[in-house]
Amino acid sequence: MKILILNGPNLNLLGMREPEVYGNRSFEEYLDYLREKYRNVNIEYEQSNVEGKLIDKIHETGFTYDGIILNAGGYTHTSVALADAVAAVTAPVVEVHISNTARREVFRHTSFLSAVCVGTITGFGLNSYELGIQALLGRIGNDR
Amino acid sequence: MKILILNGPNLNLLGMREPEVYGNRSFEEYLDYLREKYRNVNIEYEQSNVEGKLIDKIHETGFTYDGIILNAGGYTHTSVALADAVAAVTAPVVEVHISNTARREVFRHTSFLSAVCVGTITGFGLNSYELGIQALLGRIGNDR
Amino acid sequence: MKILILNGPNLNLLGMREPEVYGNRSFEEYLDYLREKYRNVNIEYEQSNVEGKLIDKIHETGFTYDGIILNAGGYTHTSVALADAVAAVTAPVVEVHISNTARREVFRHTSFLSAVCVGTITGFGLNSYELGIQALLGRIGNDR
Amino acid sequence: MKILILNGPNLNLLGMREPEVYGNRSFEEYLDYLREKYRNVNIEYEQSNVEGKLIDKIHETGFTYDGIILNAGGYTHTSVALADAVAAVTAPVVEVHISNTARREVFRHTSFLSAVCVGTITGFGLNSYELGIQALLGRIGNDR
Amino acid sequence: MKILILNGPNLNLLGMREPEVYGNRSFEEYLDYLREKYRNVNIEYEQSNVEGKLIDKIHETGFTYDGIILNAGGYTHTSVALADAVAAVTAPVVEVHISNTARREVFRHTSFLSAVCVGTITGFGLNSYELGIQALLGRIGNDR
Amino acid sequence: MKILILNGPNLNLLGMREPEVYGNRSFEEYLDYLREKYRNVNIEYEQSNVEGKLIDKIHETGFTYDGIILNAGGYTHTSVALADAVAAVTAPVVEVHISNTARREVFRHTSFLSAVCVGTITGFGLNSYELGIQALLGRIGNDR
Amino acid sequence: MKILILNGPNLNLLGMREPEVYGNRSFEEYLDYLREKYRNVNIEYEQSNVEGKLIDKIHETGFTYDGIILNAGGYTHTSVALADAVAAVTAPVVEVHISNTARREVFRHTSFLSAVCVGTITGFGLNSYELGIQALLGRIGNDR
Amino acid sequence: MKILILNGPNLNLLGMREPEVYGNRSFEEYLDYLREKYRNVNIEYEQSNVEGKLIDKIHETGFTYDGIILNAGGYTHTSVALADAVAAVTAPVVEVHISNTARREVFRHTSFLSAVCVGTITGFGLNSYELGIQALLGRIGNDR
Amino acid sequence: MKILILNGPNLNLLGMREPEVYGNRSFEEYLDYLREKYRNVNIEYEQSNVEGKLIDKIHETGFTYDGIILNAGGYTHTSVALADAVAAVTAPVVEVHISNTARREVFRHTSFLSAVCVGTITGFGLNSYELGIQALLGRIGNDR
Amino acid sequence: MKILILNGPNLNLLGMREPEVYGNRSFEEYLDYLREKYRNVNIEYEQSNVEGKLIDKIHETGFTYDGIILNAGGYTHTSVALADAVAAVTAPVVEVHISNTARREVFRHTSFLSAVCVGTITGFGLNSYELGIQALLGRIGNDR
Amino acid sequence: MKILILNGPNLNLLGMREPEVYGNRSFEEYLDYLREKYRNVNIEYEQSNVEGKLIDKIHETGFTYDGIILNAGGYTHTSVALADAVAAVTAPVVEVHISNTARREVFRHTSFLSAVCVGTITGFGLNSYELGIQALLGRIGNDR
Amino acid sequence: MKILILNGPNLNLLGMREPEVYGNRSFEEYLDYLREKYRNVNIEYEQSNVEGKLIDKIHETGFTYDGIILNAGGYTHTSVALADAVAAVTAPVVEVHISNTARREVFRHTSFLSAVCVGTITGFGLNSYELGIQALLGRIGNDR
Repeated sequence: MKILILNGPNLNLLGMREPEVYGNRSFEEYLDYLREKYRNVNIEYEQSNVEGKLIDKIHETGFTYDGIILNAGGYTHTSVALADAVAAVTAPVVEVHISNTARREVFRHTSFLSAVCVGTITGFGLNSYELGIQALLGRIGNDR
Repeated sequence: MKILILNGPNLNLLGMREPEVYGNRSFEEYLDYLREKYRNVNIEYEQSNVEGKLIDKIHETGFTYDGIILNAGGYTHTSVALADAVAAVTAPVVEVHISNTARREVFRHTSFLSAVCVGTITGFGLNSYELGIQALLGRIGNDR
Repeated sequence: MKILILNGPNLNLLGMREPEVYGNRSFEEYLDYLREKYRNVNIEYEQSNVEGKLIDKIHETGFTYDGIILNAGGYTHTSVALADAVAAVTAPVVEVHISNTARREVFRHTSFLSAVCVGTITGFGLNSYELGIQALLGRIGNDR
Repeated sequence: MKILILNGPNLNLLGMREPEVYGNRSFEEYLDYLREKYRNVNIEYEQSNVEGKLIDKIHETGFTYDGIILNAGGYTHTSVALADAVAAVTAPVVEVHISNTARREVFRHTSFLSAVCVGTITGFGLNSYELGIQALLGRIGNDR
Repeated sequence: MKILILNGPNLNLLGMREPEVYGNRSFEEYLDYLREKYRNVNIEYEQSNVEGKLIDKIHETGFTYDGIILNAGGYTHTSVALADAVAAVTAPVVEVHISNTARREVFRHTSFLSAVCVGTITGFGLNSYELGIQALLGRIGNDR
Repeated sequence: MKILILNGPNLNLLGMREPEVYGNRSFEEYLDYLREKYRNVNIEYEQSNVEGKLIDKIHETGFTYDGIILNAGGYTHTSVALADAVAAVTAPVVEVHISNTARREVFRHTSFLSAVCVGTITGFGLNSYELGIQALLGRIGNDR
Repeated sequence: MKILILNGPNLNLLGMREPEVYGNRSFEEYLDYLREKYRNVNIEYEQSNVEGKLIDKIHETGFTYDGIILNAGGYTHTSVALADAVAAVTAPVVEVHISNTARREVFRHTSFLSAVCVGTITGFGLNSYELGIQALLGRIGNDR
Repeated sequence: MKILILNGPNLNLLGMREPEVYGNRSFEEYLDYLREKYRNVNIEYEQSNVEGKLIDKIHETGFTYDGIILNAGGYTHTSVALADAVAAVTAPVVEVHISNTARREVFRHTSFLSAVCVGTITGFGLNSYELGIQALLGRIGNDR
Repeated sequence: MKILILNGPNLNLLGMREPEVYGNRSFEEYLDYLREKYRNVNIEYEQSNVEGKLIDKIHETGFTYDGIILNAGGYTHTSVALADAVAAVTAPVVEVHISNTARREVFRHTSFLSAVCVGTITGFGLNSYELGIQALLGRIGNDR
Repeated sequence: MKILILNGPNLNLLGMREPEVYGNRSFEEYLDYLREKYRNVNIEYEQSNVEGKLIDKIHETGFTYDGIILNAGGYTHTSVALADAVAAVTAPVVEVHISNTARREVFRHTSFLSAVCVGTITGFGLNSYELGIQALLGRIGNDR
Repeated sequence: MKILILNGPNLNLLGMREPEVYGNRSFEEYLDYLREKYRNVNIEYEQSNVEGKLIDKIHETGFTYDGIILNAGGYTHTSVALADAVAAVTAPVVEVHISNTARREVFRHTSFLSAVCVGTITGFGLNSYELGIQALLGRIGNDR
Repeated sequence: MKILILNGPNLNLLGMREPEVYGNRSFEEYLDYLREKYRNVNIEYEQSNVEGKLIDKIHETGFTYDGIILNAGGYTHTSVALADAVAAVTAPVVEVHISNTARREVFRHTSFLSAVCVGTITGFGLNSYELGIQALLGRIGNDR
């Protein structure tokens, strides 16, 4: 099983940026933990601050991988183009968020992505990504 | 570890109602599967169509249980009173939805509950509940 | 032919409450008239002020009766849960209102129920219920 | 007893236009059925695609007939002038719709006519017109 | 000096319709008074319930007359086409209303016509028309 | 003089729930203080989390008691049905709130109840209830 | 006959300020013209930039004068207090505007005053005031 | 104990203006009653129609008096500046209204003041002021 | 191949009306050019200012012609009835506009027609019509 | 004559992505057809998923080419920056869309580009591009 | 060079009022610093809580001074009249704010003044005024 | 002292693009002037049309430089991601605009950046940048 974890803008700062919102572990450290725990899952990881490069990556993997876990950061709330990319590919995409976006500014309460993703997992810190893997595992095991 | 799964209005019809949206397994069957798999978790289950009884149940369990998994159905989008109950108790509450509410009517795109719950899991069919259990396990194991 | 007339909140006060809006006949008196006139129709009647009990009653009858005439009173404008119950059952549901809601406060101009009911009859006083029976008779006679 | 059935724009296409929404019987066939069944009611029928001619007809009949059954089609949602005509005359006007407008585009969810008509009957196919006749009969028989 | 007084929908009912709003004098009686008082003004009068005929009349007179006094009734609030006709002609057009529209329903508080007319006179009963004539006289006397 | 103090959802948790918003005295303790101080007022008290039971209680007391003091909690902002109950009864109803709702979430800034109550008292902690009693005393003493 | 012409903020600059919008005649010059022409009307004039002084002046004259012509300038669109003053007095108040406010910024399209004034005259340059006098003369002559 | 009662625009007309809304007692008469009843409270009274003078008065008293009872009339709904003055001072300010503003025009349903005042008392006629005094007495006696 | 070019309100003034927006060629001159260039296309032309006559014409041609090019002028933005006519017929309808409506007033930015037409061509002056013919030719030649 | 066809995000997937919306021909195949047919037009083609690269390309060509045909995909509805680029260059830009955006999600009904482009062509499948070329040819031939 | 610094409501409390928002230096102290540093600039200072007096001062200086620095406090967000005064005068007016209004309540995010001022400087504490002087100096030195 | 001036989309065209809005000096010329005048400030300059590259640059400099002057052009109004980058870094960021955005299209009246920047300077032409430098100098000299 091969999946992509795709992080959008500012998530390269994880562990550095607003630790009271996003925690203080870097994403790379967390990725080691995930790969250790889910050894039978081939986890590719990519981060970009450029909207178009996120789209490129979704195109590149979205027809052959078994799933994508997408945290699009600020583009979640503004990008029709990214949502179109998700809708265009065949792999299931799971939308995840580290923080509880419903507790934050009102412009974070809408997502162009939710309607084109399989489902959404929000607010569990870095655990949101692991729950995303489990969601994809569940979908595949259940043959849906 | 003791948790409550609390289902709101119309979820008693699961397996019967709009199977193209909600699937055709009854919740009781699914509950058996969950209890079998998570033997060290004491899972209490309750369903009511009455908003006030859901509030009563949250009050009754929300100061002593280790967590609540709440699918409030149609009350999700209209009930300030239920959200106040969630905010009032000390147990972490996880909001779950079976269907991808972002693909449905616009009045299902807002939730009074999200901002007072720990996090939200939406769109994974009955798996949403299992992901909710895992989310609660993660929170407790991580000492958060 | 078996139908349910289901009245929501405050309709127990009919004949007592705001007679300039709702008239001064009690619903029970009117029910006698209906049963007398439509002898071949088995008319069950229920009223509750509790949203969840209205849902329970729709579940209980909505898979076996030939139709439901529903005046949900104030819940018409606020209850997603009730609309979900109507959508979940198989019996045709007719929405009726005694007063012309379009002449009243702006929050009475929207109904969560209309889109899930077969049709709506508004503004004919207690006659709205009788027209509802005729609408159900018409549907069944026409084999739709 | 003399009534007018007044049909607005595009209802001349009934039976031809979008049969999955409006059915496939022409209005003239249906009118024969109504006149046959309600022999003591003198039913005049008129259809026009011109907003101002509908207004003319309401003026012409609205001070002397016993009632008007009005399906204003697309003008329902946009015409203040037509609503003013209804408000200006003394005959009771019943608003009817063939389809369930609440299930269709959002601009069909508002009606300038409802507040000035006696009542509204929506969603029962061509039966909506017959229910409209019965509503007028009920009003007159009840001396209201 | 030649002017047109152009009345829109339902104004043919003046004196008959809702006298508490519009008074009980017919427009023809009032016209006699105006023609008597303003003998040096050639006052043409037309009324139509058909939006397109009002447009035709504006086209017909709007390039040669010295002014138009327009009470477009219900079309005031809904007709872009009528406003386009006013904008297209060279004669000054004065918008008048008999009733104080600001005291009535909220949809009467906006006018597509105001921005394309020279000015607006609202709320003085039939006097609004006479004030309109005086406004046109003032404009012409002042060479503006 | 006989009055009802009626508390809505979550107010049973008073003293326990969010003490920085609602204070830490239980309502029962406070009730003792009120009954002690207003000995000539017969104060009945009821609390329910069920919207429909609040309506039942208003029906039961609202035609015979001298007044009702209503803190409807979260239902204040969402319940047309409760407002209809208040409008239907003859006893004066005073709306009270413990916290200053205008400082809290935007959905707490609207109340369906205010327009049907005699008046509103907001933001004085538990004192709001006592001011409500004094307001009722003032109304009755002044024979209004 | 005694009337007040009351000008609000910035109208002291008339003739100086934005002549392409307001013309280049000072109001005092225009006032001479009005007093000359309407010799049997006692015209008092006042201008203030202070909202509260405009209110004071309306109170002072509004119970004894035969009418007020009010151009409230920018306060037209923002002042509930001024509208309350107009509603409180017994003299008829006519709202006038020099420019066609419907052609200007969107915040100038609403007026708190229109609904409490007798009528409104907008867009005729300084002639709007003279039309206002004629409107008041018409009202008084007609014994309304 | 020293308090200020501060009345805003048009409240000088009390007893004269719209008695069906505001009653027919002058505020001065009512003030005599209050001073008589609350002898140990030093009640200063001021009224102004000028927004800025109300601000001046709040500055002058708001750092030394024990409380302010503020009925800002029409400024309630439009004045950020007045709300800023209330927020700037240290004395508790109680917002009062004579009429039930929730039953009146929609622009009276919002208040810039409520969020910066201690609490709000609305709809009890002149009694609202007395309840305001009692609210201040309660706050001070309770050492809050 | 037979097509209809159908022009709505005020387009009879082309060449006369606001030439800076619409150019100064009359539509008849332009039609000669089109017929000359597209000799194998039978181009019928009709213009009306009456909304209902436009509907009549669409009904008359829309089941037998190969296409309709529709410039509905001001009715574009306000007419549900016209859109219903377009939806009801089987011929492909192309919406065209002479001016760039997106640069004009905000009420010209919405069209009831776009969603029921095959496509839309806006802003190319009279060329928009020729592009419309080419669009229809393309559809038919491509057998779509 | 030299023109640029510039395609935005996800249009590289043409022929692969949602063929029921966008057809199943790749854009490269279609480009061959266009170049074959319009031999005297030098057609450059570029596609990028990166908003800023689209802007770069518009800057690079927009001062020297004879026209640009722009299908900005999802950026159409969200990008002020792209619209600013179009406004900044001197070449005429034609906005095209393959699908009828008015039939799709509501966020596709607005375009930041339309007001700064010469005109818009929507809904004719790949033909929209060819119509765009013809529109540019028409503009240049007409010396506008 | 002669300029006016004009402060609106509540700015007389600077140093006293909400020091966490506005700092704790009085404006007079700060003015000494400015006059010391900008000796060749003649700085007049005025503060008023009365909207109309601010307008008076703008009229008085706005045709002869070299610039005005305006902090209109709460009137920024509500006063059309003040904005009209700024638009009416010829001196350049710079809008300044001490706090970052974009971080505060939503009603502070709009300004009637910005569009009529030369420019706006927000959020730099008292430095905003000094930057305003430099902005005026820059404008004058640059001969704009 | 080291600062970054960061220009967003289309600002590379300065001097070329819409000179009536942005002036006709290129930014490079202006930069020479700034570096000459502020010799003790190390001014780095970067421009990109790619949103993600602007984010990259903010990350790269925002933890070590003394300040950033950011003119994000069109991204100001649409980019949550850019605002998140500004919020994430520790250097103070000053938002500047060349034109007075409040006088332009309504979508330019909102900024995602203002709330996360230190302050905003708008409308002073290229001087806005110099004022930005002075604002940063003021902050640093004041030890804030």
